[in-house]
Amino acid sequence: MTAMVPVTNEHKPHGDWHRTPLRVPLYEVDLGQAVYHGNYFHLLELGREAFLRDLGYPYRHFMAQQLHLTIVEASCSYRRPLLYDDLIEVHTHIDGWRSRSLTFSQAITRNEGTGGRVLCTEATLKMVCVRFTGQPTLLPSEFVDILRDSSGVPQR
Amino acid sequence: MTAMVPVTNEHKPHGDWHRTPLRVPLYEVDLGQAVYHGNYFHLLELGREAFLRDLGYPYRHFMAQQLHLTIVEASCSYRRPLLYDDLIEVHTHIDGWRSRSLTFSQAITRNEGTGGRVLCTEATLKMVCVRFTGQPTLLPSEFVDILRDSSGVPQR
Amino acid sequence: MTAMVPVTNEHKPHGDWHRTPLRVPLYEVDLGQAVYHGNYFHLLELGREAFLRDLGYPYRHFMAQQLHLTIVEASCSYRRPLLYDDLIEVHTHIDGWRSRSLTFSQAITRNEGTGGRVLCTEATLKMVCVRFTGQPTLLPSEFVDILRDSSGVPQR
Amino acid sequence: MTAMVPVTNEHKPHGDWHRTPLRVPLYEVDLGQAVYHGNYFHLLELGREAFLRDLGYPYRHFMAQQLHLTIVEASCSYRRPLLYDDLIEVHTHIDGWRSRSLTFSQAITRNEGTGGRVLCTEATLKMVCVRFTGQPTLLPSEFVDILRDSSGVPQR
Repeated sequence: MTAMVPVTNEHKPHGDWHRTPLRVPLYEVDLGQAVYHGNYFHLLELGREAFLRDLGYPYRHFMAQQLHLTIVEASCSYRRPLLYDDLIEVHTHIDGWRSRSLTFSQAITRNEGTGGRVLCTEATLKMVCVRFTGQPTLLPSEFVDILRDSSGVPQR
Repeated sequence: MTAMVPVTNEHKPHGDWHRTPLRVPLYEVDLGQAVYHGNYFHLLELGREAFLRDLGYPYRHFMAQQLHLTIVEASCSYRRPLLYDDLIEVHTHIDGWRSRSLTFSQAITRNEGTGGRVLCTEATLKMVCVRFTGQPTLLPSEFVDILRDSSGVPQR
Repeated sequence: MTAMVPVTNEHKPHGDWHRTPLRVPLYEVDLGQAVYHGNYFHLLELGREAFLRDLGYPYRHFMAQQLHLTIVEASCSYRRPLLYDDLIEVHTHIDGWRSRSLTFSQAITRNEGTGGRVLCTEATLKMVCVRFTGQPTLLPSEFVDILRDSSGVPQR
Repeated sequence: MTAMVPVTNEHKPHGDWHRTPLRVPLYEVDLGQAVYHGNYFHLLELGREAFLRDLGYPYRHFMAQQLHLTIVEASCSYRRPLLYDDLIEVHTHIDGWRSRSLTFSQAITRNEGTGGRVLCTEATLKMVCVRFTGQPTLLPSEFVDILRDSSGVPQR
C-alpha cells in the first residue's frame, strides 16, 4: 500500500504517501453526476482509516481509550470531478503534529485507462484529540511514539 | 429571513447576511455525538438554497437552463460542534462573483437558551457555473442582474 | 400540523395522520435524479421527529433517559420517485405499541401544482426501546400515558 | 467470491450466494453507535455492485444503455446492529426476475473472532428496469441471457 507512486504531471502527492485504492460508489454521486462535495470526506476518511491501520495504530485504538480525533478545520480543492465507478486512490500523509493535534494532507487520484493517474482532489484536515466528553487532551503516547519513528512526519 | 442579526460576541457573520433557521437532524450526527464533518455541507446547502430562493433566483432556475454551480473549493472551520436537535441558523452571503464563478461565505450559529447566539461554524465555498456536460460557462445574465442590484455583493 | 388531510384519490394515509411539510434537498438526490432509496429514511425520520415533538414527547426525552428507539424492521414502497425541490408532506401515524416496541406507518405525498396531493412513498417501521447499552427495555411510562390518551393508537 | 459459506447457526443465506467482504466505515454510524438504518442500503448496494460485476454485467453496462434499475420496494430486518469497524460480508442473491423487474435477497453477516459468522441483517429489494426518462422497459437481453445461464435464478 505504500509503494512509490508516480503521479502523472503533478508535483503532489509525493510518492511516499500512503495509498488506498477504492471504487466510487453510486450512492456518493449526486444529481450532477459527480460525487457530492460533502461526500469526498467519506472517501478521504477511508484513506485515513487505512493509513492508521497500516501505521499500526487503528482508529479503534483511540476509541478504546475514550478518545476521538475531532476535525476542527477542513479544506478541499475539487480540481476534477470524481464519477461513479471511477477507480481511484486516496493518498494520505501526516503533515505535522503537536501534543494535542495533527494535520493530514490528502489527495485523490483517478486511474486512467492508459495506466496514468490524474490528480482530482486535494484536501487538508486539521484535527484535535478530544475525550468522549469533548475536552481536548494529549495524543496517546504510543501513537506519538509511532509518529516519531515515522520518517518524514515532523513535530511542529 | 433577512432581518438584522446581532451575533453574540462575534464580528462575523454580519447582520445583513441571509439567515435560515434549522434544527439539527439525528441522521447528520455520527458516533462522536456531533454532526459528521462532511454533513455540515448539507446544512450549508440548505442555507444557500433558501438564500437563492429569497434572492429571486432559486437553484431550480439554473437547472432549468442545464446549468449547475459546481463547487471547486471548500473550507470549513468547525469551531464548536453542532449536536442533535440544536436550533441553529445558517448565515449566507455572497462574497463576490466573476463572469463564471462566485464565492459564498457562510456561518452557522447555535441559539442558546439565553437568547444569545454562538458562532459554531464558518465556511467558504467557491463555485463555478458549468453546463450539465461539465463545461464552464457564464453565470446566467438574469442572475448577474440580481447580483448587481444586491447592495454589498461586489463583482471581483 | 394535524389538520384534516384529504389525499387525492388515495385511501391511505388517513386524514388524521400527522403531517410535516418539507422540500426535497439536492443532497438527497442521486445520479438517477430521484432521492436515493436509503435517503427516504431521512425524510421519514424528520416526519417522526416532528410527530413526537407535537405529541409532547420529543425524541430528546428518550435520550435524556439514556434510551433509543432502535429500528428492527423497515419496509418502504417507492411508488413514485421524489425529485429535487419537490414540495412534499410526510404523514406519520403510530399503528400500535406494546410494552417495549411500537410500529409507525408513514407516507410521503407530493404537492401537485393543481393543489392535489399524490401518494409517492409508503413505509412501515417497527422499533424497539433500548437502553444506550443496547438492552431492550420498557417504553417510558410518561410516553405510554400519552399514547393511551391519543385516540386511535391501539395497544397490541 | 462465490465459494461455499457455512453461516453459523443460520439457515439463510445459502452458501451459494455471492459474498462481498467489507469493513463498516465510521461515517455510516449514527449517535446510537450502530449503522444508521438508512445506511445499510449503502452496504447492500456495494454487495449488489460486486455481484453484478462478478456476474459479468456490471451496473455500468445498464447505464451505458441509458438504463437504471430503480428500487420500487425494499424491506430490511435489522436483527443485530452493525458497529463501527465490524468485519462483515454482504451476501447477495437474485430471487427471481421477470421481463422488466428483478428481486434481490441480501443478508449481512458479521465475522466473529471465533471464525464464525453471525447473521445481522436481511433485506429484500425489488427493482424495475427504467430508461433514464423513468419509463419502465425490458431488462437488457444480454443481462437476461446471463440470468438464464446462472443456475438457481428462476424466471417468475
